[in-house]
Amino acid sequence: MELKELFTKIKDLENKEVTVNGWIRNHRPQKDFGFIELSDGTTFKHLQLVYDNKLADFESYTKLHNGACIQATGTIVKSSGSNQEYEMQVNTLTLLGDCKEDYPLQPKKHSNEFLREIAYLRPRTNLFQAVFRIRSLAAMAIHEYFQQHGFIYFHAPIITASDCEGAGEMFQVTSLPLDKIKGEIDYSKDFFGKKAGLTVSGQLQAETFATAFSKTYTFGPTFRAENSNTKVHASEFWMIEPEMAFVDNNENMNIMEDMLKYVVKYCLENAQDEYQFLDKYVEKGLITKLENLIKNKFVRITHEDVITILKKADVKWEFAPEYGEDIAKEHEKYITNYFNGPVFITDWPKDIKAFYMKQNPDGKTVAAVDLEVPGSGELMGGSQREENYDKLLTRMKELNMNIEELDWYLNLRKYGTCIHSGFGMGFERLLMYLTGVENIRDVIPYPRTPGNCEY
Amino acid sequence: MELKELFTKIKDLENKEVTVNGWIRNHRPQKDFGFIELSDGTTFKHLQLVYDNKLADFESYTKLHNGACIQATGTIVKSSGSNQEYEMQVNTLTLLGDCKEDYPLQPKKHSNEFLREIAYLRPRTNLFQAVFRIRSLAAMAIHEYFQQHGFIYFHAPIITASDCEGAGEMFQVTSLPLDKIKGEIDYSKDFFGKKAGLTVSGQLQAETFATAFSKTYTFGPTFRAENSNTKVHASEFWMIEPEMAFVDNNENMNIMEDMLKYVVKYCLENAQDEYQFLDKYVEKGLITKLENLIKNKFVRITHEDVITILKKADVKWEFAPEYGEDIAKEHEKYITNYFNGPVFITDWPKDIKAFYMKQNPDGKTVAAVDLEVPGSGELMGGSQREENYDKLLTRMKELNMNIEELDWYLNLRKYGTCIHSGFGMGFERLLMYLTGVENIRDVIPYPRTPGNCEY
Repeated sequence: MELKELFTKIKDLENKEVTVNGWIRNHRPQKDFGFIELSDGTTFKHLQLVYDNKLADFESYTKLHNGACIQATGTIVKSSGSNQEYEMQVNTLTLLGDCKEDYPLQPKKHSNEFLREIAYLRPRTNLFQAVFRIRSLAAMAIHEYFQQHGFIYFHAPIITASDCEGAGEMFQVTSLPLDKIKGEIDYSKDFFGKKAGLTVSGQLQAETFATAFSKTYTFGPTFRAENSNTKVHASEFWMIEPEMAFVDNNENMNIMEDMLKYVVKYCLENAQDEYQFLDKYVEKGLITKLENLIKNKFVRITHEDVITILKKADVKWEFAPEYGEDIAKEHEKYITNYFNGPVFITDWPKDIKAFYMKQNPDGKTVAAVDLEVPGSGELMGGSQREENYDKLLTRMKELNMNIEELDWYLNLRKYGTCIHSGFGMGFERLLMYLTGVENIRDVIPYPRTPGNCEY
Repeated sequence: MELKELFTKIKDLENKEVTVNGWIRNHRPQKDFGFIELSDGTTFKHLQLVYDNKLADFESYTKLHNGACIQATGTIVKSSGSNQEYEMQVNTLTLLGDCKEDYPLQPKKHSNEFLREIAYLRPRTNLFQAVFRIRSLAAMAIHEYFQQHGFIYFHAPIITASDCEGAGEMFQVTSLPLDKIKGEIDYSKDFFGKKAGLTVSGQLQAETFATAFSKTYTFGPTFRAENSNTKVHASEFWMIEPEMAFVDNNENMNIMEDMLKYVVKYCLENAQDEYQFLDKYVEKGLITKLENLIKNKFVRITHEDVITILKKADVKWEFAPEYGEDIAKEHEKYITNYFNGPVFITDWPKDIKAFYMKQNPDGKTVAAVDLEVPGSGELMGGSQREENYDKLLTRMKELNMNIEELDWYLNLRKYGTCIHSGFGMGFERLLMYLTGVENIRDVIPYPRTPGNCEY
């Protein structure tokens, strides 16, 4: 029986014999009896196994190693210990797979840095049991939300020739024998007959689905070949990018807010043990922070009004806030503290935002929105998309973009164009917010960062 | 109102006025009235709009183009036509986005080859509305199945340095300025400080999660730089790779069968209109084929017994079946016809299978399994994994593998090893089976194949 099932019906199992499999997390053998904390990873909970010297194989049991894989048969009984209500009184233990003495995981506190070096074993620790289960749950919650609301899941292409020229941030993908390159490269001989790279976003392609299915979302990996070694940047990360036809930027924000609340609620409900742990050991107040997010309506304020607030603030800024300019981390922090909750900042200066964003009538701003959350800063970014062919074309020309390469994107504005909007959410940013974990390397099973590509 | 909602409660809407948005799929203007088939992509169904010359703007309505985006307000009424029970008697039509006359999609039959050339518009056709909605539904069904059964969704790394040497099938990923390479390449200067490529499978990494969470699954993109231009090969495709601790190859097959039936059932139930269309125009008998799959228990037979059957068959083979050797497409076809349903072929000759598969006591075979389905051939492949450290090490040495690079994988057998199994399913192969579509390029939004990387 799996431990998840066992704990679900443990009251009914009292005084009954069950058999479980799992790994020894902590073994405390004593003179006349021994305690084993058993985990099988199906639940955050461990089962306490108690064996005593009346058992024929008592001596051999006392020698079981931490990390070993065992099968345990015994009776579920009320526990006299204070850490658990029930435990197993062991009848037999069978060693399925021993654990060699050089096992790097011992029942003590290891630093996250050390655990990163043994990333293939860290899922066996409490912290990463919690983080990666929440990662799995959050992914499911996102799929549930969008599918329940009629969105079509769109797999954006990973390898792309779009936006490839001059984009220094893009990884190149090739099957050319690099060691034989001499001088000029003939990309017509490369696998795809042209220069190709790893996608940085599936949004543009997703718009082709939005104008066919009305509502679509991506959920897939994206990449940045950016040489930044920070706590919040990874070279490979997963993104969610919904696109909706007949939706303006206000409705866009409604969906962002509704979706985020759904995901938070889903995780809180389905990972209660994990959240007790994270709240205690990782981010004090985490549960309250998330419960508040669900309860409160997010503030909506224009970029201009944000700058006004920042300018009035009695703070010595490192970067002076300025109309028409981007805002810095310190400003994000001030604003979410100011409103004591998540804040949608709308109507950004067009010159600091992407070409495809809907141009506002003022000629200066675009119908863009960033969601800032307390503690984590920017969690999502979105906008209404420019649906007017001429305006979009003019903007692309202003920015010296390759019109021909994106003719299909422009054509969406020629063949039955419509008001539409969308947003992007970095999945790992969300997870850091959901778990309180501060380093993006600790919410990705096998993180890729500059100089790091293990496993 | 979205069309999906409208059709769900259409009886209640009779004689009521509603407003809908969508795209004109087919416009038949006549002298005194006109018919418009409207689609918004939220459902496979189109709404018929009927307008007549009593309307003030009748003349301008007759000029609306196919492909244009419009808003329609009108009354839902019983239809006198035979194609639909209800239709909308139009009060007003508003043009939201015109469609230029060079629109390549016209209300006639286009070939799949032609549609591939305008891949960004093909989601607006009936065929691709059906295929891509089923793609989305099947993905959801897979997530539901595994999450309901306690599997942890594991995001395997996409960029990997594993298995990189000598694997000609792997795309290389680099941020080196290729045009400046002269002679020897210094990979220590590449982004990850070593040679890196795109993953061909997440299985090995998934095993690290199986030995921590008991049950895990991947669902992500994988890649092959194979220069094969066939109907069933793509260079970029999505894979599902579950891994389960404490599961032998028999239980592995139970899960494969149960999962597949769940997905098929989910799609049939949630895409009824789409299946009526596919059954009529793409694969006659598709629905019956899928219903039979759900009803019947899959056959289980060893590779050896399959060869015996093939040898006895009164067939002139292109490739003679032989004990100890792989089976060809013609053999797969014969066997699924022979049993008239899906067949698990087990216990394959070890020399034609992967190093990590559980070695059977006979010394000749491994506890591997392929699932063959009628019409499509191999749909899944899996095995029990070799959990014995020494046996695995010996096999890796026999195959001259790089032991050091995979030490972490070997270590799973040193630190609490357990019986475990898993399998892989190509998502696009599944979709071809689910939809009857014969070319893999037509079940992927933006397919990547040799020489092909558009959008």
